[in-house]
Amino acid sequence: MAIDTGRTFLGALGEALPDMRLLTDPADTESYRWDETEYLQPGRPLGVAFPRSTDEVAALVRLAARHRTPLVPRGAGSGLSGGAVAVEGALTVVLTEMAAILEIDRQNLVAVVQPGIINAALGRAVAEHGLFYPPDPASFEICTIGGNLAENSGGLRCVKYGVTGDFVLGLEVVLADGAVIRTGGKSLKDVAGYDLTQLFVGSEGTLGIITEATLRLMPAPPPKLTLLAFFADVPAAGDAVGRIFDAGVVPVTLELMDGFTVRAVDDWHQLGLDRTAGAMLMIESDAGGAAAERELDAAAQACEAAGATSLVRAADATEADWLRQARRAAHGALERAGVARMDDVGVPRSRIPEMLAAIERISAAHGLPVGVFGHAGDGNLHPTFVVDREDPTAEARINTARSAIYDAAIALGGTITGEHGTGVAKRAYLERQRGSDAVRVMRAIKHALDPDGLLNPGKVL
Amino acid sequence: MAIDTGRTFLGALGEALPDMRLLTDPADTESYRWDETEYLQPGRPLGVAFPRSTDEVAALVRLAARHRTPLVPRGAGSGLSGGAVAVEGALTVVLTEMAAILEIDRQNLVAVVQPGIINAALGRAVAEHGLFYPPDPASFEICTIGGNLAENSGGLRCVKYGVTGDFVLGLEVVLADGAVIRTGGKSLKDVAGYDLTQLFVGSEGTLGIITEATLRLMPAPPPKLTLLAFFADVPAAGDAVGRIFDAGVVPVTLELMDGFTVRAVDDWHQLGLDRTAGAMLMIESDAGGAAAERELDAAAQACEAAGATSLVRAADATEADWLRQARRAAHGALERAGVARMDDVGVPRSRIPEMLAAIERISAAHGLPVGVFGHAGDGNLHPTFVVDREDPTAEARINTARSAIYDAAIALGGTITGEHGTGVAKRAYLERQRGSDAVRVMRAIKHALDPDGLLNPGKVL
Repeated sequence: MAIDTGRTFLGALGEALPDMRLLTDPADTESYRWDETEYLQPGRPLGVAFPRSTDEVAALVRLAARHRTPLVPRGAGSGLSGGAVAVEGALTVVLTEMAAILEIDRQNLVAVVQPGIINAALGRAVAEHGLFYPPDPASFEICTIGGNLAENSGGLRCVKYGVTGDFVLGLEVVLADGAVIRTGGKSLKDVAGYDLTQLFVGSEGTLGIITEATLRLMPAPPPKLTLLAFFADVPAAGDAVGRIFDAGVVPVTLELMDGFTVRAVDDWHQLGLDRTAGAMLMIESDAGGAAAERELDAAAQACEAAGATSLVRAADATEADWLRQARRAAHGALERAGVARMDDVGVPRSRIPEMLAAIERISAAHGLPVGVFGHAGDGNLHPTFVVDREDPTAEARINTARSAIYDAAIALGGTITGEHGTGVAKRAYLERQRGSDAVRVMRAIKHALDPDGLLNPGKVL
Repeated sequence: MAIDTGRTFLGALGEALPDMRLLTDPADTESYRWDETEYLQPGRPLGVAFPRSTDEVAALVRLAARHRTPLVPRGAGSGLSGGAVAVEGALTVVLTEMAAILEIDRQNLVAVVQPGIINAALGRAVAEHGLFYPPDPASFEICTIGGNLAENSGGLRCVKYGVTGDFVLGLEVVLADGAVIRTGGKSLKDVAGYDLTQLFVGSEGTLGIITEATLRLMPAPPPKLTLLAFFADVPAAGDAVGRIFDAGVVPVTLELMDGFTVRAVDDWHQLGLDRTAGAMLMIESDAGGAAAERELDAAAQACEAAGATSLVRAADATEADWLRQARRAAHGALERAGVARMDDVGVPRSRIPEMLAAIERISAAHGLPVGVFGHAGDGNLHPTFVVDREDPTAEARINTARSAIYDAAIALGGTITGEHGTGVAKRAYLERQRGSDAVRVMRAIKHALDPDGLLNPGKVL
């Protein structure tokens, strides 16, 4: 089976889809090689295509299949596992020109969207109808729904509402041979055949290219109330997380930052946070009115029982929003201190204190300063190593340390990736968590759907 | 490839697992041939096995693979699509002796269970810890969690909380070759590799046999408030459903019964329902206290705007529970009038009035009395034909009518099965809904995971 030289394919593509934007000059394609994993070395793409319709995607895929040219689907490139980085000799397919909201259906509480729509743009559009799309990755102002679907992204509100996949009712997908299928629709319950929707969600474009999604919405919840709790050390904050849930409270947001991160964020944004604290929790309720007050009261009591050194309620919605933005900026704040390599592990919530202790132990053992923040409410932590840009030994030490951190997460019944995806960054560790038989099943499914391995090769598996 | 005669396999099975209960006498196996689809003619099983551990299931599957003997996994046999009916010459594997609750983990809000546990037994056990497992099929007092997982069952609370699959964090599955995998665990967020959990959920034992499940729980909600609304006709009730959601209310339960069903239920249970009504809605809120009152007030206003003829609030929890039981007994009530063939279609909620009109039109055209009830809140309806036991033409007319009903549901953007599954009953219609390319993908997955077609053959696909 001869591999096409690429030039023939590009020629045929230009002929078949003359109106589609297609970049082939390396100067033009360079910025589409990378995502937010700057430590990964992507390949050089054959070109970068910007299809504008499902028909164009299908035509492109059929042509690529005929020429055996691999394809890399891509959204905004804000991913953190290398799911969208370029593959040598592959055509990168950027979905950002398919960014329409096709429908906001208030009666059925669904939105039908193209993959290129920005998460925040969808949120604003549905808010105008009094509706709410919960999944909100920290990158929500720049990331696309297509990328969220590809990675099954999480965010700050997952602890109460769930992750991206929990809000997907159906997809339109272009398969590896160019056929177009629909996996579901606006029906809330639909059990006809196998659940293909959730199989494509989180598969990082390795099983098909998502060209449309039917998303479940909710009526907009009441405004949030926000509580900050400061602690002398990280274990006390971890203890508080358990006590909050023991009290029967499921907050909409329950975020943790260690002292290192608190100071980095405060340096940047001058929020007046307690810079002497060893850890901070941000706890929010959208239960509304008196119920929200009760939730935050119960959370405050739980924090005090865990030894909180101070508790601060946001004075108003603006202040709360400012604090939330600061949390979302945690990674950026740490980056000001050097190279900040953010990781993404998850454990059952009750194991958070052990996971935090393991991170501290491992970082110390490798002499790597670490900032830890994350979605403590759902056990998803982002240990972030901060190293000097010029340190030639950093990369190797980070790799040893992160391997140890994955082992620790797995030993605690957790995961090597809570919300960033497997991509290129973690495929070597997948079997360690899932086991060889489960990975064999994944490979069998990949082979069944993409026998020639043309869809985003080298990602996930 | 020679097919084993069966006797050799049974001998080897008895030798390998001498302590496992194994029925082979047709008098003993007869009751395990059927589920609740009495109109389907099941095959005669080779035998019926009752493994007591994952190891026994794995040993059994390995042996069956070696002898090319097909297997039919089974729970309580309360299914309504023939997913668990016996297959000629296959070994039926009953999971009811694996019925332990292995763990109720309050801190992580999860339960770890074996597949044979009865849904209601799990509900009661977690309630003792102040917790809540939402999915509640009408058969919840007799159906197993394993069966719920196999069919991705729904129930009365799905409109607010979701279906079985929404509460599954991880599974232990015995694959077709006897290998045992785990697809997830107690982590709320886990995106390592493909989502195998949701692929096995709803696959009716055709891809693997589920031997353990990690289920997500919730803190128990406040007691429910219950409202009944009666209407002159079905379209008015359908209109009310839309108005309730327009008002921003998401009730925990929103059930519909047409007048035919109301009278059948009242005949049986003497509830004092309005027997002159053309339709009834049962609306419940578990929002708690004043919030629940507000939800029901808003729902009551919506019903009045849609022309409700009367509104009744349940006087207390006992009365509400009684009404709920009556709703669950709708199928049984209709059965008292003859053969009651319950179906299960779903449409986007806004299309309910059109679906109800289509059901009425189709039933009239085929001279088939029909009672309609179902989960109006999520668009899932159970049109139930009631025919004379002795009518020799009924079967053919039902088959023509149900085909027309599926066409109508599909034309409205809906599904041939909202919560009962594809099984044997609907496999012929699967492609009509999903399309040939999507079914081709399902077949490819089935072949990848069960190349010899030994797991529940003839079901789903």
